Amino acid sequence: MFITLKPHATDAEFEAVVDKVRSLGLTPHPISGTERRVVAVVGHTSAVDPEDFAMLPGVAEALRVSQPFKLVSREVKEEDTVVDVDGVKVGGRAIAVMAGPCSVESEEQIMAAAEAVKKAGAAFLRGGAYKPRTSPYEFQGLREEGLKLLALARERTGLKVVTEVMSTETVDLVAYYADVLQVGARNMQNYALLERLGKARKPVMLKRGLSGTIKEWLMAAEYVVAKGNPDVMLCERGIRTFETATRNTLDINAIPVAKALSHLPVIVDPSHGIGLRKHVPAVARAAVAAGADGIIVEVHPRPEKALSDGHQSLDFPEFQELMRQLRVIALAVGRTVM
Amino acid sequence: MFITLKPHATDAEFEAVVDKVRSLGLTPHPISGTERRVVAVVGHTSAVDPEDFAMLPGVAEALRVSQPFKLVSREVKEEDTVVDVDGVKVGGRAIAVMAGPCSVESEEQIMAAAEAVKKAGAAFLRGGAYKPRTSPYEFQGLREEGLKLLALARERTGLKVVTEVMSTETVDLVAYYADVLQVGARNMQNYALLERLGKARKPVMLKRGLSGTIKEWLMAAEYVVAKGNPDVMLCERGIRTFETATRNTLDINAIPVAKALSHLPVIVDPSHGIGLRKHVPAVARAAVAAGADGIIVEVHPRPEKALSDGHQSLDFPEFQELMRQLRVIALAVGRTVM
Amino acid sequence: MFITLKPHATDAEFEAVVDKVRSLGLTPHPISGTERRVVAVVGHTSAVDPEDFAMLPGVAEALRVSQPFKLVSREVKEEDTVVDVDGVKVGGRAIAVMAGPCSVESEEQIMAAAEAVKKAGAAFLRGGAYKPRTSPYEFQGLREEGLKLLALARERTGLKVVTEVMSTETVDLVAYYADVLQVGARNMQNYALLERLGKARKPVMLKRGLSGTIKEWLMAAEYVVAKGNPDVMLCERGIRTFETATRNTLDINAIPVAKALSHLPVIVDPSHGIGLRKHVPAVARAAVAAGADGIIVEVHPRPEKALSDGHQSLDFPEFQELMRQLRVIALAVGRTVM
Amino acid sequence: MFITLKPHATDAEFEAVVDKVRSLGLTPHPISGTERRVVAVVGHTSAVDPEDFAMLPGVAEALRVSQPFKLVSREVKEEDTVVDVDGVKVGGRAIAVMAGPCSVESEEQIMAAAEAVKKAGAAFLRGGAYKPRTSPYEFQGLREEGLKLLALARERTGLKVVTEVMSTETVDLVAYYADVLQVGARNMQNYALLERLGKARKPVMLKRGLSGTIKEWLMAAEYVVAKGNPDVMLCERGIRTFETATRNTLDINAIPVAKALSHLPVIVDPSHGIGLRKHVPAVARAAVAAGADGIIVEVHPRPEKALSDGHQSLDFPEFQELMRQLRVIALAVGRTVM
Repeated sequence: MFITLKPHATDAEFEAVVDKVRSLGLTPHPISGTERRVVAVVGHTSAVDPEDFAMLPGVAEALRVSQPFKLVSREVKEEDTVVDVDGVKVGGRAIAVMAGPCSVESEEQIMAAAEAVKKAGAAFLRGGAYKPRTSPYEFQGLREEGLKLLALARERTGLKVVTEVMSTETVDLVAYYADVLQVGARNMQNYALLERLGKARKPVMLKRGLSGTIKEWLMAAEYVVAKGNPDVMLCERGIRTFETATRNTLDINAIPVAKALSHLPVIVDPSHGIGLRKHVPAVARAAVAAGADGIIVEVHPRPEKALSDGHQSLDFPEFQELMRQLRVIALAVGRTVM
Repeated sequence: MFITLKPHATDAEFEAVVDKVRSLGLTPHPISGTERRVVAVVGHTSAVDPEDFAMLPGVAEALRVSQPFKLVSREVKEEDTVVDVDGVKVGGRAIAVMAGPCSVESEEQIMAAAEAVKKAGAAFLRGGAYKPRTSPYEFQGLREEGLKLLALARERTGLKVVTEVMSTETVDLVAYYADVLQVGARNMQNYALLERLGKARKPVMLKRGLSGTIKEWLMAAEYVVAKGNPDVMLCERGIRTFETATRNTLDINAIPVAKALSHLPVIVDPSHGIGLRKHVPAVARAAVAAGADGIIVEVHPRPEKALSDGHQSLDFPEFQELMRQLRVIALAVGRTVM
Repeated sequence: MFITLKPHATDAEFEAVVDKVRSLGLTPHPISGTERRVVAVVGHTSAVDPEDFAMLPGVAEALRVSQPFKLVSREVKEEDTVVDVDGVKVGGRAIAVMAGPCSVESEEQIMAAAEAVKKAGAAFLRGGAYKPRTSPYEFQGLREEGLKLLALARERTGLKVVTEVMSTETVDLVAYYADVLQVGARNMQNYALLERLGKARKPVMLKRGLSGTIKEWLMAAEYVVAKGNPDVMLCERGIRTFETATRNTLDINAIPVAKALSHLPVIVDPSHGIGLRKHVPAVARAAVAAGADGIIVEVHPRPEKALSDGHQSLDFPEFQELMRQLRVIALAVGRTVM
Repeated sequence: MFITLKPHATDAEFEAVVDKVRSLGLTPHPISGTERRVVAVVGHTSAVDPEDFAMLPGVAEALRVSQPFKLVSREVKEEDTVVDVDGVKVGGRAIAVMAGPCSVESEEQIMAAAEAVKKAGAAFLRGGAYKPRTSPYEFQGLREEGLKLLALARERTGLKVVTEVMSTETVDLVAYYADVLQVGARNMQNYALLERLGKARKPVMLKRGLSGTIKEWLMAAEYVVAKGNPDVMLCERGIRTFETATRNTLDINAIPVAKALSHLPVIVDPSHGIGLRKHVPAVARAAVAAGADGIIVEVHPRPEKALSDGHQSLDFPEFQELMRQLRVIALAVGRTVM
């Protein structure tokens, strides 16, 4: 249920609403828009009559909602969410570019990548310290050592760090070093992890699962927000289809659809989305043209030597050229590149 | 097999190659590039030794190819194919916009649409006279009457006409009235139709099937070209996936991949690709940013009254605004809108 | 609309209903059940009031239907359709086995196959004379020569012949030689072909398209029946999914679902359904256990030498063993193998 | 790498091999077949020369393997794995039937279900105590209270208990009460969970992910086995496709394919596989006919009142009838129902 307050409702009126929600054994989630406040009510609301709230002082209306997602829904919060990543804003007019290698491999590699992507204009450094691998025998990442290298790269370049967290046990550790906690596609519906991230103090980037519908993806985001962390970015990274010429099928439709259904920022990963190095720029341009709020792209000093994903990583000159192209496309849709 | 001639090979040397191909019971397909000529050899070439050709005067090399498609392959013909539609060129620097209603419904409707899309800057009028419908009880199109109305609209506006042909029996009739013969997604592998279109004298636009891989789509184009019609445009219109929030999943990846594998122009249909009117512009912009050579979009005087596809048709003001956006994006990728 | 007559309605009452339907510009399709007759009304019935029929003598009720398919729907005709193929019945208690090579290659090959499958207990000989091939350069079948060989094999063995028809132009020719006209998966929505088959005098076997939903498949069958040919068998042959370990994904669910929605017999093609010779028997057994009315399976004298589909064809001993297994499974579900 | 010992190799020879593996920083996994022992070597074996092992006394051969899965591969262990669940064997001639409600709802409900499925002949009780739900606002299960009720039902009926574990934190708790630890489809590639289960002392049932390929599913099983738990059962529960008439598409092909690639038992879940109560028996019969080693099916005292999955749950008489059918089909494929 959503209880919308009148534009000039007082703080006391607001508190009275929140108290009444709690008194019924339900959980209130206050949402502050620019003009008015809304209280989303979570819990078994079926036995509660919206009229009991509608009649309270300062309340404009109380409504049940039909969409299965609530807190992440644009029906509830009309304005775009702008996630503040330690001073860098994602979801506003400026498009965020996140770049770096698939895996952190060594200090030399991550520093070279960080400096190159910084120079080309990226705002975030990406790099995997914990790597989900299909096979238990493949390189699983440098783990905490990788996190330390990422933090060191941040110190040297000022880039914000985005990196994957794969388990509840490592949430605190990853959150200690990273600026954005990435949930991988295979964990989109790992509910224990989502709930744990709802209690983390860092923004979350939630990748869409290989066979996750747009609605399931938003429901997964709802898990994080419902547990208390409103700073979620969605990330479209391609879905699994019958087509085998490309690694995945980037769902370009998902960008406008997710942004219409939800107020959360939508980031696009063209590297996994197509999986073919030479075509990554075309897909990245398309994403920005379709309204993406950011791009996360794999860049490696020497793609042909990468321990993972070399076939879809750009080298430095290719990334520099991509940044140039993205700035022009961003301009064409009335935005800038961060 | 492909026999590449030397840059300055004489016509007599060229003819000698062609004759030898024929003498072996195979079919020669001469392809003229800007610098040199190539003869593609079609038939059971497995018993033929490329060396028998490589030693002929004027021949640079003779190679077997591994790609299953030959004539449509960029390995064979490096330069982009530019299809000349009665003076309007598709596949060059200018992006072709094709617009109009799903179905031709009446003279009034098609004339209103033609004039509006012409005014907004489209070069082609689209409109279905023969409609493939899932149910035998739905409106099947005005048939020849619809073709006549399309021809009339061309006469009044100068727009080129693109319309679907559904059966071998009607190829001549549709070719009599139309400028471009469209093959619908459900007929992508209707080989009898493809072969018949190979003998038609009008360009063909081949829509990708709902579950057609990129390679199968190119092989279907190969059927048309192998039978003698080199003027084929590919059209990406969305594939069928598990996602149900959109009608289809527009495969944005297919644009750069098809253009890398083939020299044929690639048109994109954002209307079917997403199936949601309000999101058609975002997808159209993405397509141009990814390198599409044209856009085919549904536009109707009154979408809410359309006999078919009203939910994905733009009205006139929306189309005008889309044209404005496409011009800006086109500029950003170094192209223009026709 | 469906007009159901009373159990003891007279022929005159029945004729009066049919005449009234015609007088309104609609087409009546009489359907005879064991207990009562129904008249399905096809055409633009939206302006017709069911009450106008309900009040006629001998009429039990007149109802609009919501399912998009009508004539093939079990709502309309409750009893299973039993298709009589020149004396051999498909859709009753006995399960029909159709077997033979992918393509007719030579007299020697087809005769050997026919005699072997006959001896093992099959009732139908399958074999392609016209072959839909992804590439225009692959073997396209022996065409009329292949049809003649199939007819010769029927003469010698008494097997009924099922073979594919790929184009409207060849319907009469194929119908002259064959007992069952097969529509291939790629032509499931080739509406010109479906309509033409509605006027043919031979039963039709309609394969499900690679991305055809169960409802679209039934709608395609509706095209054939609506044009006048009630003798349609459905054929599940696997759908296209992300799984690459098998050629297709046989949709076992489709058997009970199609049989619940429709009264038409459902045949299953395990050869295309899995595409792996050694696993064809497991899938065939599963199909019978799930309720299939028949099996169509590829059998070749020497699978390793077949011009097409050798990797999924059984040899004679394997087919004989499969027949033994199917008889046991059929018994377990209260049926027999024809 | 796999080091196969000679049939009569001594224990000392065997230990020498194991020691050498360890001395190279690799992990040995001894596998005992009926005739000979094999040592699977896990770790970065690329720098190790198989010849160094092949020359040791008692060694028959040392081979690198190409399949990405090793320990679960039939290439490595030819004999079927029979998982011993506290005395009940899964993977042998007898087919295991696991039945019960989607969620444990109350003592009354789970006891009624346990007694009914026991009486009908099931060997395992299924029931969810921790429920993965798409929405954070849906019923999430009775948690430990549910586990206790399952254990109580086991005490009263002798049925073995299979229930889902959703997070690493609850592995010990679930393992304390349950006999089989089920990994849900959404967690198929939750590697932290898989690794943790590799150290559990109870058998694991690993459901295939909605978009998991057969190879990825086997690789996920490899994670569990590589960490030390060889008692893994695979569970096919339907994949996600374009078809919307059914909840999922049960991949019947996966049964023979997984059993050919791996020695692990394959269980089938027809309830999720089709999602339609009235068609569950047809799919269950098909699974047994195709070679499944077990069936897990949802049964509820009153499906129409179930808190979850009521639309796909059988009631008691339906389950009893299904058991009767399965016994007949099992007999037809030379097996029995446990």
